[in-house]
Amino acid sequence: MISDKMIGLVQNSSVIRAMFEEGKRLADIYGAENVYDFSLGNPSVEPPKKIKEEILNIINTEEANLVHGYMSNSGYEDVRTAIADSLNKRFQTSFSRENIIMTVGAAGGLNVILKTLLNPGDEVIVFAPFFGEYRSYVDNFDGKLVVVSPNTLDFQPNLAEFETKITERTKVIIVNTPNNPTGVVYSEATVKGLADVLNRKQKELGNSIYLISDEPYRELVYDGVEVPYLTKYYNNTIVGYSFSKSLSLPGERIGYLVIPNEVDDYTNVIGAANVANRILGFVNAPSLMQRVVARCLDAEVDVASYNRNRELLYNSLRQYGYTCIKPEGAFYLFVKALEEDDKAFAVAAKNHNILIVPGSSFGCPGYCRIAYCVAYETIQRSLPGFEKLAKEYKSTDRS
Amino acid sequence: MISDKMIGLVQNSSVIRAMFEEGKRLADIYGAENVYDFSLGNPSVEPPKKIKEEILNIINTEEANLVHGYMSNSGYEDVRTAIADSLNKRFQTSFSRENIIMTVGAAGGLNVILKTLLNPGDEVIVFAPFFGEYRSYVDNFDGKLVVVSPNTLDFQPNLAEFETKITERTKVIIVNTPNNPTGVVYSEATVKGLADVLNRKQKELGNSIYLISDEPYRELVYDGVEVPYLTKYYNNTIVGYSFSKSLSLPGERIGYLVIPNEVDDYTNVIGAANVANRILGFVNAPSLMQRVVARCLDAEVDVASYNRNRELLYNSLRQYGYTCIKPEGAFYLFVKALEEDDKAFAVAAKNHNILIVPGSSFGCPGYCRIAYCVAYETIQRSLPGFEKLAKEYKSTDRS
Repeated sequence: MISDKMIGLVQNSSVIRAMFEEGKRLADIYGAENVYDFSLGNPSVEPPKKIKEEILNIINTEEANLVHGYMSNSGYEDVRTAIADSLNKRFQTSFSRENIIMTVGAAGGLNVILKTLLNPGDEVIVFAPFFGEYRSYVDNFDGKLVVVSPNTLDFQPNLAEFETKITERTKVIIVNTPNNPTGVVYSEATVKGLADVLNRKQKELGNSIYLISDEPYRELVYDGVEVPYLTKYYNNTIVGYSFSKSLSLPGERIGYLVIPNEVDDYTNVIGAANVANRILGFVNAPSLMQRVVARCLDAEVDVASYNRNRELLYNSLRQYGYTCIKPEGAFYLFVKALEEDDKAFAVAAKNHNILIVPGSSFGCPGYCRIAYCVAYETIQRSLPGFEKLAKEYKSTDRS
Repeated sequence: MISDKMIGLVQNSSVIRAMFEEGKRLADIYGAENVYDFSLGNPSVEPPKKIKEEILNIINTEEANLVHGYMSNSGYEDVRTAIADSLNKRFQTSFSRENIIMTVGAAGGLNVILKTLLNPGDEVIVFAPFFGEYRSYVDNFDGKLVVVSPNTLDFQPNLAEFETKITERTKVIIVNTPNNPTGVVYSEATVKGLADVLNRKQKELGNSIYLISDEPYRELVYDGVEVPYLTKYYNNTIVGYSFSKSLSLPGERIGYLVIPNEVDDYTNVIGAANVANRILGFVNAPSLMQRVVARCLDAEVDVASYNRNRELLYNSLRQYGYTCIKPEGAFYLFVKALEEDDKAFAVAAKNHNILIVPGSSFGCPGYCRIAYCVAYETIQRSLPGFEKLAKEYKSTDRS
């Protein structure tokens, strides 16, 4: 018998697996090129050439026991220094390696910091729509997820409702900007407003409230939009970063946490995060990839490719009559479903071999997520299906 | 403020860090070559040449988005098939890829399977001496660690006491053979005895009791000793494996779980383990290293080097009058402290620049662990210190 907690999770998970199996079934019938799978955030753009070059350099020149061996649980000292220096140069911060812990991706980093901070029953506030895995990460430590309802006008967080949801048990806020699933970047005004609420509430309640900024999509932005660096706006900010999307390395599980000196109880937080990294079973972030990313901090994937996808998909959907916000970052487009039930809408899309994820998975029913990190041709070929889908709803007046 | 659980862990952890700092302090005073650090299980032997060759092959010939991209949470299908085939050839088992989940080392694998199985309050039995991290892994899921006291005669598990400690709440047994910290390999008679007890108790209690075999040291054995493959002796066995020591890749965090078809509730266990791998934040085992180890399943590190260390250290310590069992595997020697208090003995050793870990950390006071995965010359140079230490105790009659 598996644990009680896992029973429900396995059942939920098989819904997603069913979609995956369905995609394979459709591909067998219609051919893979005629199935348009927009369900997964798996980067379609290649890693920068420098990744290959630096792997070869390291393997050919560095000592094998150093490259593949244990190091401090928080990561190689030179790697952490390189990351701190790079952040300081980009964001005028003043981090040192003592503020950086290398992690097994951002997912590993979030689990490490939640293990560090949460007592059972502590509340973690997220803004809908939000990455559905946060539910599980918070539940891993018996925290209680508190959801601020979506602001579907522009998908910036609803700060008025946020303030009312902060209680004596609020320990952590998680934000994710550029956002999965909307592609929205939280504006500087939003960030300042968020910091104001948090500073006021900390003072009022006499508690520390930590803001965790989950930033796997930081480098994927369009039209020159700026993504504020949150540690500069609110002292109790901890950043979780991943190279999965910025360098197209999602399988390698490499990222880091930034824990600034300014956070409350810094010495214990950094010490505990280091121990949590070890005892959760990560031990340390993968060693070769630590050394690789340290040499590739200025490398970039071809964001222009994602932008081309974004423009084609957004403009076409708008032309067909869909309602959606133009994403400013990440590689997701969040479209209003053409009926109230987003799950039914996703099924209707599947009839055109289009696979998209219902917004309910992100705490935002009535919408669907389209992951456009696919080949340009996939989007091109999918467009007639999107157009027919819109027409179907218009003709039956189901909208 | 950090969580209540982490407060105690950070305090304990700083004891170990203090030892590490002490080693650095001593190295500054006496020179690194005159400090004999036997405290860490970090392999001194290089990875096999094939590791480098296959990294270069893969990077030069395979598609980058395949090598570094997401795959199924349980790992690449071809990699899992290669591992199942290799196990079947070596141990006459009949696994398929559906029995293999690639994990972030054995530490990741153990956390995944404990998350899968444990409800709060479920009991996990370990045999002292045992790897101290099991305490934290079990506590991560609010399990209760139950320790069977050490059999210091030959360090095979005390099966009589084991049987008395199995209750209705017993869900998991963890064994580790070849053993850290003793280097003892559990004999076939031990394994059969263990299976007998478990089969009897399962029937009596009407419960499933899972045996987790933690096997990072399987390939490091001496004098041709055989390590029984536990799935063949007891149906409810799950294996946690790591390439950290067998291929000297501890920093890379690569291993796997074997969950045979024969385990009770197989479908749910494998499904839940797959989900647990994702939601604990591992997501999947590092991708490039999955592909590398699949090509290196028959590669071996130079076990002869460890054997040379073992012979020199064991023979010398016996000659100086120390009491210890000759290790048959791993790269640890578990020596009886020359006074009752193993922590005091470790401090006395440190006065000779010898760093060893008190047995209390492994649930076995009165002993100390010497990790001989160091340069041969380190052992040679440390011997006069070990000899003087023994003489000190003889002259003061503290033993």
